[in-house]
Amino acid sequence: MAQTVPVPAIGVVRTSRTSLEDTPIQAALNRREVGTIELDPRYQDGLDGLERFGYAWLITWLHDPDKLADSPVSLRQTPFLLRGTGRQIGIFATRGPRRINPIGLSLIEIVGVTGRIVEFAGVDVIDGTPVIDLKPYVQRFDRPPGDPPCGWFDDLTIAEGVTPAELGEPSGSG
Amino acid sequence: MAQTVPVPAIGVVRTSRTSLEDTPIQAALNRREVGTIELDPRYQDGLDGLERFGYAWLITWLHDPDKLADSPVSLRQTPFLLRGTGRQIGIFATRGPRRINPIGLSLIEIVGVTGRIVEFAGVDVIDGTPVIDLKPYVQRFDRPPGDPPCGWFDDLTIAEGVTPAELGEPSGSG
Repeated sequence: MAQTVPVPAIGVVRTSRTSLEDTPIQAALNRREVGTIELDPRYQDGLDGLERFGYAWLITWLHDPDKLADSPVSLRQTPFLLRGTGRQIGIFATRGPRRINPIGLSLIEIVGVTGRIVEFAGVDVIDGTPVIDLKPYVQRFDRPPGDPPCGWFDDLTIAEGVTPAELGEPSGSG
Repeated sequence: MAQTVPVPAIGVVRTSRTSLEDTPIQAALNRREVGTIELDPRYQDGLDGLERFGYAWLITWLHDPDKLADSPVSLRQTPFLLRGTGRQIGIFATRGPRRINPIGLSLIEIVGVTGRIVEFAGVDVIDGTPVIDLKPYVQRFDRPPGDPPCGWFDDLTIAEGVTPAELGEPSGSG
């Protein structure tokens, strides 16, 4: 279990957002906002063919500009969407950014690919977020059959574009 | 762009597969096969609530037991599914394992959670693959509207459980 792998950033995300508290919590809830991925020039040829996909998985390293991680990551946290309830959920049953490995998974809509720049719709990360991978969305692979249960999310009504700040004050657990 | 982040494994995947060439290429194409995730004991509490989800994203580090990566990663490759055609695709428009950062994204079905062990259905990684994150599948976040275009995959018929070995000899580009 002691394995540690070094992960180089392959690019950076550019968005208008600068604070986690004011950034929509999921790309799917903020489809109208556009951002760009600036890929490292040396990897540009790897984008060949991506423009023919409607969506892609943007995999990011959710660095920590607000220095939330001065404290260790709690294994049970109150997700943004449950702020005010005090309810805690295991981090591997949440999509929150404070994780053992702060890997972000955003379903982005591909607007266009020009050189090493990917324009996309669906912003849920702050400006400057490092990109660690980019994969095409493939319906055959990524859509489970039917309407599977989605745990605590199934009890919620989630507003479009909602940000953590709109969901109330953070609780002690992050 | 010089950022490098150290990523510790949070667990390991146990499957019956030992060779990449004989491992089904996607979890969604191999739903009947069951595997387990052995989480590092110190992270067990992070699983709380996961059992109420039907599916999850298993995010792995696709280590390289076959030593394919002795050569540098090509930015354009012939995907497993296009073996025999010689056609090359940019790696960020493929789901292949030879990437700049060999991050695997598998949509697994949650069979059960017992202590630090997650039993799942949908095996597309070999035994011993390090786990770097685990996130619940949330339909509201992870299902794009309609039937989006999926690039070169839209031209293919893909057989259940297909392995690279069944798709022909590897071409020079991996």
